[in-house]
Amino acid sequence: MTLLDIQNYLLQFLPSVEITGDETRIINRLAKIEDAVEGDLTFIANPKYEKFLETTAASAILISPKLATAYPSNRATFIKTADPYTAFVFLLEKLSPPRTWINAGSHPAAIIARTASVHPSASIGAGAYIGEQCVIGEGSFIGHNTVVMTGTRIGAACTIYPNVTIYDGSQLGDRVTIHSGSAVGSDGFGFAPQPDGSYRKIPQTGIVVIEDDVEIGANVCIDRATLGETRIEKGAKIDNLVQIAHNVRIGANTVVAAQTGISGSTSVGQSCMIGGQAGLVGHLTIADRVVIGAQSGVSRSIMAAGEIVRGWPAQPIKTQLRQEAIVRRLETDLAAMMNRIKALESELAQMKAAE
Amino acid sequence: MTLLDIQNYLLQFLPSVEITGDETRIINRLAKIEDAVEGDLTFIANPKYEKFLETTAASAILISPKLATAYPSNRATFIKTADPYTAFVFLLEKLSPPRTWINAGSHPAAIIARTASVHPSASIGAGAYIGEQCVIGEGSFIGHNTVVMTGTRIGAACTIYPNVTIYDGSQLGDRVTIHSGSAVGSDGFGFAPQPDGSYRKIPQTGIVVIEDDVEIGANVCIDRATLGETRIEKGAKIDNLVQIAHNVRIGANTVVAAQTGISGSTSVGQSCMIGGQAGLVGHLTIADRVVIGAQSGVSRSIMAAGEIVRGWPAQPIKTQLRQEAIVRRLETDLAAMMNRIKALESELAQMKAAE
Amino acid sequence: MTLLDIQNYLLQFLPSVEITGDETRIINRLAKIEDAVEGDLTFIANPKYEKFLETTAASAILISPKLATAYPSNRATFIKTADPYTAFVFLLEKLSPPRTWINAGSHPAAIIARTASVHPSASIGAGAYIGEQCVIGEGSFIGHNTVVMTGTRIGAACTIYPNVTIYDGSQLGDRVTIHSGSAVGSDGFGFAPQPDGSYRKIPQTGIVVIEDDVEIGANVCIDRATLGETRIEKGAKIDNLVQIAHNVRIGANTVVAAQTGISGSTSVGQSCMIGGQAGLVGHLTIADRVVIGAQSGVSRSIMAAGEIVRGWPAQPIKTQLRQEAIVRRLETDLAAMMNRIKALESELAQMKAAE
Repeated sequence: MTLLDIQNYLLQFLPSVEITGDETRIINRLAKIEDAVEGDLTFIANPKYEKFLETTAASAILISPKLATAYPSNRATFIKTADPYTAFVFLLEKLSPPRTWINAGSHPAAIIARTASVHPSASIGAGAYIGEQCVIGEGSFIGHNTVVMTGTRIGAACTIYPNVTIYDGSQLGDRVTIHSGSAVGSDGFGFAPQPDGSYRKIPQTGIVVIEDDVEIGANVCIDRATLGETRIEKGAKIDNLVQIAHNVRIGANTVVAAQTGISGSTSVGQSCMIGGQAGLVGHLTIADRVVIGAQSGVSRSIMAAGEIVRGWPAQPIKTQLRQEAIVRRLETDLAAMMNRIKALESELAQMKAAE
Repeated sequence: MTLLDIQNYLLQFLPSVEITGDETRIINRLAKIEDAVEGDLTFIANPKYEKFLETTAASAILISPKLATAYPSNRATFIKTADPYTAFVFLLEKLSPPRTWINAGSHPAAIIARTASVHPSASIGAGAYIGEQCVIGEGSFIGHNTVVMTGTRIGAACTIYPNVTIYDGSQLGDRVTIHSGSAVGSDGFGFAPQPDGSYRKIPQTGIVVIEDDVEIGANVCIDRATLGETRIEKGAKIDNLVQIAHNVRIGANTVVAAQTGISGSTSVGQSCMIGGQAGLVGHLTIADRVVIGAQSGVSRSIMAAGEIVRGWPAQPIKTQLRQEAIVRRLETDLAAMMNRIKALESELAQMKAAE
Repeated sequence: MTLLDIQNYLLQFLPSVEITGDETRIINRLAKIEDAVEGDLTFIANPKYEKFLETTAASAILISPKLATAYPSNRATFIKTADPYTAFVFLLEKLSPPRTWINAGSHPAAIIARTASVHPSASIGAGAYIGEQCVIGEGSFIGHNTVVMTGTRIGAACTIYPNVTIYDGSQLGDRVTIHSGSAVGSDGFGFAPQPDGSYRKIPQTGIVVIEDDVEIGANVCIDRATLGETRIEKGAKIDNLVQIAHNVRIGANTVVAAQTGISGSTSVGQSCMIGGQAGLVGHLTIADRVVIGAQSGVSRSIMAAGEIVRGWPAQPIKTQLRQEAIVRRLETDLAAMMNRIKALESELAQMKAAE
């Protein structure tokens, strides 16, 4: 594929794609800039990697029009486009060979209950279990040894990887992806304390609803509601090892990074970004477009859309960063104040003595 | 079911259940107060939800005798009882249709080793594996594709959901519940550093013991002991994604919230409450009824029963909250002190100049 | 086995092993010092456990030559050796009965794709799935219901426990151990934001490479690279519930404790130690032999080999510990300073009044 071919392909999606240099060069592979060799096309999106522009052997580089393209030792052709990362993604999609990990159709070793309804175009892996009254939609893949329990509905074009468990009554939309080891619909953590110190289990009678275009990572836990629904709205992306408790709502297009935990009945708005290992206590309301820093502890609702918080307990980022800076220079500042106090004390003592 | 029926049912368990209003109303469903419609019974236990008392369309509301029951636009019948939440739990138990996710008996696609002993009333799911010398007790459910390794004993009336792994030699009591994806009895993390910088694995020769009435969430890890036992005592409740290392003891009726990690050989007392994402270092002793706040880092033993700790490193909650408050107002306080120092300095300078 | 036998056995590995007392005593069992009874051999490695030296009923104790061995009520024979813990590990290896959890050979209920190549000496558990073009090496164990997807290569003498998922194209060396529930090769968390607020999935076209002698705990997630490799180098040890994102490198002999998360493209050096629940942001470089404290948040590269960091955000341990101490005594220190300021103010006021 020549750079001219690549330019033409990208112009289907992107308004401007401009080549500076030899457009006949042949591209064999996509690569990261630190790994790229002759014949590779790469990209620059993160300033941390600009240093490689001097030394990369890549044949071509997708680059923002804002960046310089003259580097003494770099003989690459530059392709200028406003969002090099998205351009690279389009090329990855075009050039990646399709991954094949499951054969089409139902494997003879899949177990499909008599009352389940599996679309003829769906693929069910070896050892997968599809329970009674389940519905599996058109073109969906259910991985090997994945368990889909009674009465679950899975839409069209879903990819459920191996060893996933989807509990009874869950409802998944179309184009949902779930990675291995995740548990969807397990019981919420609800126990009523009894006078003798023991706990009585609170029946978890609700379900989990996962809307279209949601992607869920590996070893994620999404608990079923006590009553009603735990709901992951359209287009949300949930990373590995995230905990989503009963009756939580995750708004559309919200992104939750790995190992974050969201406690019961908390409602997270749309288009939020939650960093890794953050924790949210229960019964909160988080507005739309809120950004929560990694490892933050959110203990109050955030009502202002677009608010950025960080820290423990989390507070607006400006306040938090100023506070972190104050703590960092505290030793110096306290010592300086103490010196001025001592100076005052000794001056005063001298004045008294002089009286 | 009428409210009179409900009152009579609850009076079997609770000392006082009093109806204020029409006791003949028919209840069709249980619901959360924010979702309840005509025909629903709901409850108020958390003050955050009292605002819904003005507007709910519920037909009946379980409520504490301490709360007012006169709301202009609320036409519900009120049922006064000291612990509305527990009352609601009793009703959930009575009114929830039983969840069916596994058929009775052993599925033909279950694999049961020749020397395993499975009680005739137990149910073994499709693709489940019951290893040599295992014992599965009366009325227990072993989920689809769950693996029970050699020599494990599971008591009566246990519910092991699909895709769980229970390693060899584990011992489970009666009425134990384990959710999907959990690993019980995996190797403790023990390696002896060698002179060449590599690590030599320390054989993990102990087991895991889980006593009666324990519930374990999804994707939990409970490591086997190096020597002896890792033990979860009667009635303890472990939420999703919790890490319990080798030789840990969790006391009876202790509750551990999601994503908490407890390091090797730490002993947690009875009736403790550990918040989410907390971490405890190894070889600690935690007394009974200790409360550890979410995201705390506990690096020392806590010997006083009932102590409440929080923060990083964790300290008694009063100290910790005072410290958090001091840090929050530090900028203001330091600036105020500095102003007073400057005022003193300038006064002193004036006095000197005036001498 | 007598203590003389034990001495002779240990002298094969250790330069000096000296018996103080009766070398004919018979040892039946290895035990922790707090549990040991007559007939048991135990060890002392952690000073926290020295208190048990007074009271243990053990018949023999492995102990450092630096420790006293005269305790009035202790009648054990002492075995002095420079590293009692490593000595104990050698004995554990010798005396532990081998764990049997899988039968030799391929279980009839294993599913092995036609084009997979399984060494005749490998053991494949019931319900395990070995995909097309997979290679399973000599003497490796693949647990029950474990899924090995298309084109994965697993070396010799590996132990993959039940219910693991290894995605397509993964490459494992020899003597690799992976515990239950782990997902190796799941998609990296990469999505390009689109103008309408939705996210476009970035194809994750790379693989995971796990070198020889790596041990991976239960419910770990190791994501495949976007391009190229995510690599776990020789001898690294990864504890339960760890998140390793796309394109991460973990250096040889590095140890990562439970629930830690390492974000995308971060490179961790060799022989590092990372405590539990720590978090590292993406695109960092961590030098060799760096030690990162539990629950730390690392937001910058650490270029100095052997650096020890701790805290949030993480900083060199001396700075961090001093800062923690300052914050802890802040209330007292501020009050003391304020008192001195007030004293100055009142003195000054008196002086003025006296003028």
